[in-house]
Amino acid sequence: MTDSPRPRTVDMRGEIDRRQFVQGAMAGAAALALGEPRMPSAFVATHQKDAVVAQIAAQHNATVKMLQDWIALPSIAAENLNFPKGAEYMAQLARDAGFSHVEVVPTKGKPGVFATLDVGAPTSLAVYFMYDVKQFDPAEWSSPPLEGRLVDKPGYGKVIVGRGATNTKGPQVAFLAALHAFKAAGRKLPVNLVLVCEGEEEIASPNFSQVVFKPEVEAALRKCVGIIIPLGNQDPDGSVTINLGAKGVVELELVSTGEKWGRGPKKDIHSSYEAQVDSPVWHLVKALDTLVESDGHTPAVAGFFDKVRPLSPELKRILEEAIAQRSEAETKKALGIDRWFKDESWHDTNVRLVTQPTINIEGLVGGYTGPGGKTILPHKAVAKIDMRLVPDMTAKGTLELLKAHLAKHGFGDIEVNMSGGYDPTETDPNSKLVKAQIATYKALGVEPGLWPRLAGSWPGVTFTGAPLHLPAGQFGMGHGGGAHAPDEYWVVESSNPKVAGMDGAVRSFVEFLYQLA
Amino acid sequence: MTDSPRPRTVDMRGEIDRRQFVQGAMAGAAALALGEPRMPSAFVATHQKDAVVAQIAAQHNATVKMLQDWIALPSIAAENLNFPKGAEYMAQLARDAGFSHVEVVPTKGKPGVFATLDVGAPTSLAVYFMYDVKQFDPAEWSSPPLEGRLVDKPGYGKVIVGRGATNTKGPQVAFLAALHAFKAAGRKLPVNLVLVCEGEEEIASPNFSQVVFKPEVEAALRKCVGIIIPLGNQDPDGSVTINLGAKGVVELELVSTGEKWGRGPKKDIHSSYEAQVDSPVWHLVKALDTLVESDGHTPAVAGFFDKVRPLSPELKRILEEAIAQRSEAETKKALGIDRWFKDESWHDTNVRLVTQPTINIEGLVGGYTGPGGKTILPHKAVAKIDMRLVPDMTAKGTLELLKAHLAKHGFGDIEVNMSGGYDPTETDPNSKLVKAQIATYKALGVEPGLWPRLAGSWPGVTFTGAPLHLPAGQFGMGHGGGAHAPDEYWVVESSNPKVAGMDGAVRSFVEFLYQLA
Repeated sequence: MTDSPRPRTVDMRGEIDRRQFVQGAMAGAAALALGEPRMPSAFVATHQKDAVVAQIAAQHNATVKMLQDWIALPSIAAENLNFPKGAEYMAQLARDAGFSHVEVVPTKGKPGVFATLDVGAPTSLAVYFMYDVKQFDPAEWSSPPLEGRLVDKPGYGKVIVGRGATNTKGPQVAFLAALHAFKAAGRKLPVNLVLVCEGEEEIASPNFSQVVFKPEVEAALRKCVGIIIPLGNQDPDGSVTINLGAKGVVELELVSTGEKWGRGPKKDIHSSYEAQVDSPVWHLVKALDTLVESDGHTPAVAGFFDKVRPLSPELKRILEEAIAQRSEAETKKALGIDRWFKDESWHDTNVRLVTQPTINIEGLVGGYTGPGGKTILPHKAVAKIDMRLVPDMTAKGTLELLKAHLAKHGFGDIEVNMSGGYDPTETDPNSKLVKAQIATYKALGVEPGLWPRLAGSWPGVTFTGAPLHLPAGQFGMGHGGGAHAPDEYWVVESSNPKVAGMDGAVRSFVEFLYQLA
Repeated sequence: MTDSPRPRTVDMRGEIDRRQFVQGAMAGAAALALGEPRMPSAFVATHQKDAVVAQIAAQHNATVKMLQDWIALPSIAAENLNFPKGAEYMAQLARDAGFSHVEVVPTKGKPGVFATLDVGAPTSLAVYFMYDVKQFDPAEWSSPPLEGRLVDKPGYGKVIVGRGATNTKGPQVAFLAALHAFKAAGRKLPVNLVLVCEGEEEIASPNFSQVVFKPEVEAALRKCVGIIIPLGNQDPDGSVTINLGAKGVVELELVSTGEKWGRGPKKDIHSSYEAQVDSPVWHLVKALDTLVESDGHTPAVAGFFDKVRPLSPELKRILEEAIAQRSEAETKKALGIDRWFKDESWHDTNVRLVTQPTINIEGLVGGYTGPGGKTILPHKAVAKIDMRLVPDMTAKGTLELLKAHLAKHGFGDIEVNMSGGYDPTETDPNSKLVKAQIATYKALGVEPGLWPRLAGSWPGVTFTGAPLHLPAGQFGMGHGGGAHAPDEYWVVESSNPKVAGMDGAVRSFVEFLYQLA
């Protein structure tokens, strides 16, 4: 329900389109290696792990089929579709990829999956999978959402179209295919693996902690240097960004009703009575008005900024460098806006984006919402709110501040119904995980951009927060789009030499495992 | 779209249920005359116009069929359904009832109908008809909305169910049936009649003035002592109220968009950008906040109260008398509320209801309005507003005050789209029209209650305002319900001796024409 952890999601498109980090170095043989993975000679030119890498192209068709078969089995928590079948399928995929211990982990909701592959290596890596997908309406699709049809997409190449293609079965299959490549090549993995999977990511992971903090799972995770979320991180121009953290979020509804208020009507009545009867809608408007300053933007909730921690000098440096490389014009074009808040400079507005918490109204709904008007005095009005949090704010603490603020201003009757949220996420740029990611991208000819903190949110805090404190981040080459939307796709054979296809994505995981070791 | 002129509409139900004016006198023969119109002896006991009155019962079945046939032909302006067919049918109904001059009057919208019946009497009465009806969804009805099925409704008797049954084909058929009774009895009408009809009442009469102020129509209306809108004015308890006026109304939408504002997004974008991009939703909230005082109720638009004229001493007296007869407990029960604004007394809140203008929010809609949340920064938000006006406020003038207020407070970019409205209506309690209404109700055994000003609105100003200055008001016995709703009904044979059935309604018009003369 809240943000997808994947910047490749449709609603993060704006975020994506402004990356401009591809270097001139990204060309020639390396490009061929990514864009035309079926040319072994190209791989030879870029790497010596011939035996494993060669398997990638050899098993290409099997990899594509693995993805198509998985797409054909959609698990949708919101619709209670294909459970526990989806978890069992996930478990089998893990076994096939070589995981030695694989178990389905029951939760109060949909089951998760826990698997380990111990090769006795000094280094262990954790990997996060989600086996559930977003709802879909076949009527909106140009090809059946569960078919996984291979389609030529102008400017991208041959893509596979299906629900979950990029979010996130495609990248996850690429990771599994990397393990298959090691098996087929008879090579031992350079690191041990711990796999944790959930089936409720699209409903905000309400029970995932029951998987992560199951004693043996937590114990296994503690041994890891970090955790990656497989993802096709490349923009259409081939560039890649590594986010060193993400804002936390609280999503909630503010509900004003005559029933709870004890004033105003308990059902909609004729609007002529507004002369003598209080309005729950005006009540909500007055309450909302107190939440932000007169600038209509800056949070005015008492104590809201108390726990905001400034960026570290290192993150400031990373931010300054990144800002300089971003295009204000292209960002404004992508977002469809003319001015930044307060007409701030490109530099200042990016600092604000990264460092400031927010209170946003996602939606307003109350009374009559159809065409024209209807003369009623509504008994209820709702504001859908999201609050973005930066370290050291917490979801729970910020929710309490909001409730206290409303009560203090005479709006204690307004219901505050939190539907989801979690604390901010932070990953040390000097962690082994991040360094291995950077080294891998560079080895593959991509100069990754670093970004201190995603303004969007993902529940990485489960790993980066107490008690695990694991570095965490999305990783992987490749590109897809249309997450949460019709015609979701994942690039299988790229027509752009700077963008990896499926085999290039698989290759990035092989490279990453070696880099980490 | 705005209020129906008929207090019998569903959304005026609260208004209706609090009338408690039925006197003990309302019983016996008179009651029989109303509840059991087929007993001529009862009529003899209450009135000497035997010849005409006797015809009412004789033509009962023909009257019911007239209504059923008309219900079968719904004209719905919003759906462009059955035009000009509905107008031609209306014209034929007038001819059949004895109108000598009948013409369909073209307008820029749907045609109206103008008819006259000159019997050379010294007194002329104008009558308003609407031949259009509200939209309907057959799936929501217990019997086909165009069938006009006769159904036993517990507590009411035999009712006819169909769209337009009470709003307002039933009462209009009752008036036409009265004219048929005169014809059948060979009696001359005691007054001349001028009939004006429209087919766009349900879309707020946008072109009705083109009918009323057509030279020959206006000339005919000028000769009249007033104009009545046929209506079943009885509450379920048989009581009747005569409203001596009604508030005016302005309905509009306030639309805040990034496009018009020049700030914020022009399309919905990911909510994480709220950190650096202005929100058209917060912009609307801040604008709305300025429209009412901190009490969340009292209009704060500059100049809003400048033209409010106090009630005349006579209307004050009428109001005081009426308040004393109303039940606070029953009113609160009907409205489903526990407290009045400011916890005022029953007396003070009624004075407020009658004398104070309002700004009401009918609805709020912006961004994501579905279940749960969606992390977007919406590009648009809309507030649906209605403002109730008292003399001497005008719709045009109040709209200008609102626009000036928004501009002055920095919200000049917010669109103010008026969808309809009109000035307040006033009718002199000492006018011949009102006196004849009172005399008629009394003659039929009902002590009518007077009310200075309906808090709701109807476009009577077309008649009561310049240049015509005609007394105007709804008139008629009988009862119906469900206007604008499924299973709309009109009582044909009443099981309540205090409530008139169809024949009793017809009878009230016969009586009224004699009283007026």
